[in-house]
Amino acid sequence: MAMNLRKNQAPLYIKVHEIDNTAIIVNDGGLPKGTVFSCGLVLEEDVPQGHKVALTDLNQGDEIVRYGEVIGFADETIKRGSWIREALVRMPAPPALDDLPLANRVPQPRPPLEGYTFEGYRNADGSAGTKNILGITTSVQCVVGVLDYAVKRIKEELLPKYPNVDDVVPLHHQYGCGVAINAPDAVIPIRTIQNLAKHPNFGGEVMVIGLGCEKLLPERIASENDDDILSLQDHRGFAAMIQSILEMAEERLIRLNSRTRVSCPVSDLVIGLQCGGSDAFSGVTANPAVGYAADLLVRAGATVLFSEVTEVRDAIHLLTPRAVSEEVGQSLIKEMKWYDSYLRRGDADRSANPSPGNKKGGLSNVVEKALGSVAKSGTSPISGVLGPGERAKQKGLLFAATPASDFVCGTLQLAAGMNLQVFTTGRGTPYGLAAAPVLKVSTRHSLSEHWADLIDINAGRIATGEASIEDVGWEIFRTILDVASGRKQTWADRWGLHNDLCLFNPAPVT
Amino acid sequence: MAMNLRKNQAPLYIKVHEIDNTAIIVNDGGLPKGTVFSCGLVLEEDVPQGHKVALTDLNQGDEIVRYGEVIGFADETIKRGSWIREALVRMPAPPALDDLPLANRVPQPRPPLEGYTFEGYRNADGSAGTKNILGITTSVQCVVGVLDYAVKRIKEELLPKYPNVDDVVPLHHQYGCGVAINAPDAVIPIRTIQNLAKHPNFGGEVMVIGLGCEKLLPERIASENDDDILSLQDHRGFAAMIQSILEMAEERLIRLNSRTRVSCPVSDLVIGLQCGGSDAFSGVTANPAVGYAADLLVRAGATVLFSEVTEVRDAIHLLTPRAVSEEVGQSLIKEMKWYDSYLRRGDADRSANPSPGNKKGGLSNVVEKALGSVAKSGTSPISGVLGPGERAKQKGLLFAATPASDFVCGTLQLAAGMNLQVFTTGRGTPYGLAAAPVLKVSTRHSLSEHWADLIDINAGRIATGEASIEDVGWEIFRTILDVASGRKQTWADRWGLHNDLCLFNPAPVT
Ligand SMILES: [Ca+2]
Ligand SMILES: [Ca+2]
Ligand SMILES: [Ca+2]
Ligand SMILES: [Ca+2]
Ligand SMILES: [Ca+2]
Repeated sequence: MAMNLRKNQAPLYIKVHEIDNTAIIVNDGGLPKGTVFSCGLVLEEDVPQGHKVALTDLNQGDEIVRYGEVIGFADETIKRGSWIREALVRMPAPPALDDLPLANRVPQPRPPLEGYTFEGYRNADGSAGTKNILGITTSVQCVVGVLDYAVKRIKEELLPKYPNVDDVVPLHHQYGCGVAINAPDAVIPIRTIQNLAKHPNFGGEVMVIGLGCEKLLPERIASENDDDILSLQDHRGFAAMIQSILEMAEERLIRLNSRTRVSCPVSDLVIGLQCGGSDAFSGVTANPAVGYAADLLVRAGATVLFSEVTEVRDAIHLLTPRAVSEEVGQSLIKEMKWYDSYLRRGDADRSANPSPGNKKGGLSNVVEKALGSVAKSGTSPISGVLGPGERAKQKGLLFAATPASDFVCGTLQLAAGMNLQVFTTGRGTPYGLAAAPVLKVSTRHSLSEHWADLIDINAGRIATGEASIEDVGWEIFRTILDVASGRKQTWADRWGLHNDLCLFNPAPVT
Repeated sequence: MAMNLRKNQAPLYIKVHEIDNTAIIVNDGGLPKGTVFSCGLVLEEDVPQGHKVALTDLNQGDEIVRYGEVIGFADETIKRGSWIREALVRMPAPPALDDLPLANRVPQPRPPLEGYTFEGYRNADGSAGTKNILGITTSVQCVVGVLDYAVKRIKEELLPKYPNVDDVVPLHHQYGCGVAINAPDAVIPIRTIQNLAKHPNFGGEVMVIGLGCEKLLPERIASENDDDILSLQDHRGFAAMIQSILEMAEERLIRLNSRTRVSCPVSDLVIGLQCGGSDAFSGVTANPAVGYAADLLVRAGATVLFSEVTEVRDAIHLLTPRAVSEEVGQSLIKEMKWYDSYLRRGDADRSANPSPGNKKGGLSNVVEKALGSVAKSGTSPISGVLGPGERAKQKGLLFAATPASDFVCGTLQLAAGMNLQVFTTGRGTPYGLAAAPVLKVSTRHSLSEHWADLIDINAGRIATGEASIEDVGWEIFRTILDVASGRKQTWADRWGLHNDLCLFNPAPVT
């Protein structure tokens, strides 16, 4: 990918914390050997954009410090002005989980932020939707061929008659049968499906298509009402199945169509935060700006979810002090331990993250990635922890434990009740979800220019000094309210770019 | 599900082997207490269709014998004529894997079956297609939103110009990033994707859509030619991506469109066998008929794959003697051991199978299910074993190790090069695959009637004596040739019912 130098831009690097002995190169296309910075630093070699330069001479074994934290140790002598390549950084051990400080630096609550609302769909259970969707849940993958056929006809024949309904979304997944449904970890995919079926953007209309012989009984999903379940094996042939699905859908479309947007407090928002295709800018532009917006949301009473266990694991010592109580701190640690053991039983470890693209973007290892990733969580107290697939039941900043995989994390945040996601990306991904809007924030100018019809907000202006973290944070906050209100459409929704759901099933298939 | 009694049918049961002390009820709707069979047996209670009746008095601890094998032990006294409910059957231990007889009863080769051909698409690598499809592989799930948008346009704007091309099939999957790509078990999903990209029904045209920063490098899928790879991050925005995908697709559609069906020997067929939604009839009607067809196919030189480790595990002692060599026998055992350990590390065991529907259909446990399932393999020597996701490179009957999950098994059989699948079902599933035709065979009359527009072949006639296993076996064999030649369409293809692919990834997500 060719990057153009931003016009007239002086050589620039970003040092995050005063004790850092490394900084990242800001300029598009990187900077050549011999570049002289205003502070007098001279580059000893070409350094790509987003990659690290040594600010001091480092001996073998010296700490490499970024974000005020040790991200690794020099594997050989590195001269001031040299490129700190990934291969030169020896990764430190992860923070031990048994002696972490708990709830000892709980941030003071900041003043409530008042006067902001959004236009949403009020649900009977007290939640609110940012879209008005007919969601059709499946109890088993067997039914998706039939369901897809039906959904095509619903969209062509029925949906146009109900203009207040935004979409019809079939919830495909790969669970339901051929799985060890009594294994201890099966609780995760099962509660995920249960909670997805009742997503706030589905207006309380539950509709479950089952087969009739699957292990995951549809009654476990639509527990309140048998009328919400349709079993294919009860139907005399394909044509009858389609007829029944269309009828069941239309009943619900009629009810959904009668809804209108009403003014809702920001406390009805459940905002998921995620990053994907991260680079070294993620932690200094997009993620801190999202963190700023997260603080605003928390002050306005919203629920804010941050996630991605493998990307917070190495920064956990910065999070447990922010937990509102020792109990919440212990819950954070419990999720870290569970994941450590999950990786170990698959003979994997945290070095499986970052991806080659992350590395190309300047991230040396998961420690550096984690320090940048947790910036999304802002500075609020951590009020609670959700296990994978659990539904959020409280306000404030919550850690929703999920893998970092974009689709798995997105699916689990949806299950948590997320009605809008903010997604930061450095390398660029066209990620989107059918069930809730996804607002994409780029870490770099060049990505916003390169993908002008995919990126919603450009946080790259922070690196060049054209905007502050605060400016972009407020832009994100205001855009969330616009998108949640249906006043503004994300690029992903404009094009209809929606990734498949991806359940997290740590239990065996059979 | 209401079942109608088949008109004028006398009370009937099926005893499979002369030493069996149990038999299953044939009549639709089951039979009431007091029913007298021609042999003099009187039912002590109502027994549902497909469920077992005791042919002798059983004391607590007595062996319950079906298929000439012990399927369990009586958990209490069971009187002759009583219903042997699932709860009354204590499951035996699985066959020990360390002292199994190997290759000691290799069936004699039967005379070659000559004079049969099908009309297929000849590929440069020597394989043959049963369809002429543009397959579009993804290296990572990130791209599917964009790909789906492009495929919709390809189908609307391009496909009609190339009438010899049957379909455009995007290969969605949930792998590629956010996974422990260096974990030992990662080899399974990776080789699956590699082999899917080169499926015989794709005519040798490889087309891979990647993102640009994913862990699974597209070069690992399209290793021969860079021109077969398109990376979204290389494109300036969404519109440019779509334009490029359309151009790349059209180049391939032009070449695919120039192909015509030619006469091919049966040895070019790679037939996958699977069952799903099994019942107690599976092992006496559909599966033995498929086994008969499998023997015909092997005699005609084809490759035949049987699979589903969890369903052969308990019948493994019947399979190792049929292995052509001790080495092949050891490979069978190796796959069983791997799966035992895979289940164990997830705290699951073989009792996770069968499903509630299987049980409702009369299958008491996985032993009974396995004995019925392996009937699909017929009586030929077992010539080889494929690990999950490996490509078949030899002719004859092969064991392709896969989970029993219909979608996972189907995906892995496609990776093995399967160009047509035969799928038996008792409870009923509308299963289909986009990449290869799926022929559905019902185990019961009542299902064929109930789902007349979904079931292709009715093996239920075997239970009632209206057709022999041989009759239905030949019908399956001939229908395979018709479908493989494009002369006959399966119901699943008629309606376009295609399940999602489902990779087998035993390694962790991250
Ligand atoms: Ca991330
Ligand atoms: Ca992510
Ligand atoms: Ca080339
Ligand atoms: Ca099966
Ligand atoms: Ca199966």
